[in-house]
Amino acid sequence: MAEQLTQRADLSDLIAAGIRDIPDFPKPGVTFKDITPLLATPEALRAVVSAVAEQYGTDGVDAVVGLEARGFILATPIALELGAGFIPVRKAGKLPARTLRESYDLEYGTATVEMHADAITPGSRVLIVDDVLATGGTGRAAVELVRRAGGTVVGFSVLMELAFLQGRDQLTDVDVHALTVV
Amino acid sequence: MAEQLTQRADLSDLIAAGIRDIPDFPKPGVTFKDITPLLATPEALRAVVSAVAEQYGTDGVDAVVGLEARGFILATPIALELGAGFIPVRKAGKLPARTLRESYDLEYGTATVEMHADAITPGSRVLIVDDVLATGGTGRAAVELVRRAGGTVVGFSVLMELAFLQGRDQLTDVDVHALTVV
Repeated sequence: MAEQLTQRADLSDLIAAGIRDIPDFPKPGVTFKDITPLLATPEALRAVVSAVAEQYGTDGVDAVVGLEARGFILATPIALELGAGFIPVRKAGKLPARTLRESYDLEYGTATVEMHADAITPGSRVLIVDDVLATGGTGRAAVELVRRAGGTVVGFSVLMELAFLQGRDQLTDVDVHALTVV
Repeated sequence: MAEQLTQRADLSDLIAAGIRDIPDFPKPGVTFKDITPLLATPEALRAVVSAVAEQYGTDGVDAVVGLEARGFILATPIALELGAGFIPVRKAGKLPARTLRESYDLEYGTATVEMHADAITPGSRVLIVDDVLATGGTGRAAVELVRRAGGTVVGFSVLMELAFLQGRDQLTDVDVHALTVV
């Protein structure tokens, strides 16, 4: 118990040290939370992957879905740690075989993401992974894709949740797990 | 020795079973080699990551650079296996902090990729990872970025080399390692 608490404190410290604020990106007035220093630090990368794998280790995860592009970075090592396969959800037009598609609203217009129609064996237990939960649009679309393919969504795991964007409101029927909330 | 040969045969079988031909993608007359079935197969994913980590395990790799987007998928687990950090090379405009940029020729026009200017500690030993070696344009650009940042390129590792596109000709000064050549 004491050891577990220490590990969590270490994880929080590693995450805090690995995320930096970049002002005025992608546009003036917006502060971007940049996780690349964390990814470049071996012990932080290892701690993040282990923490997510531990969270879902007893859930019988068959496949981990990663959301293009930054979701790919953490999804594969988490999949390996869970003994699961990796499945990409990509922006429209990137996947070569037959796909399922979902569109979602952006500030201006819509965006579409796709998953191969045969990627998920019906009945599979699927963890969805992305780097950041912002407005929840991509996450919601990914949940729909997995369910349409016959999979069960075990959870939606992100490194960081931007709580002020209220993305969790889009995912009330899903177990959302964030390692850090800002 | 016999065991090593058996492992290599298994790896070849897993790779061959995990890559499928998709006709007429991205355009009519082109056959796309789709690696998503391999990525979705836990034992194949594990075998590929282990093989690359074994290849570079004694080279003192400090950082693994992954090329957006599909290079991200394999780069992070390889980094973890090598005890290294992960660094993204991204398409122009995606990285939030100050970047180094390199452009390269496409069939029509040019493309630009970027890496954070402070991503690499000078003197670091860097492995570059992508899914496929095609014409070599992105790979060449990534090598230049790493060297401009003061890193030493230990190797350029891909799952699959499309030999008929002669990408290796762009990388004659780099150790190019492909798990399979088609």
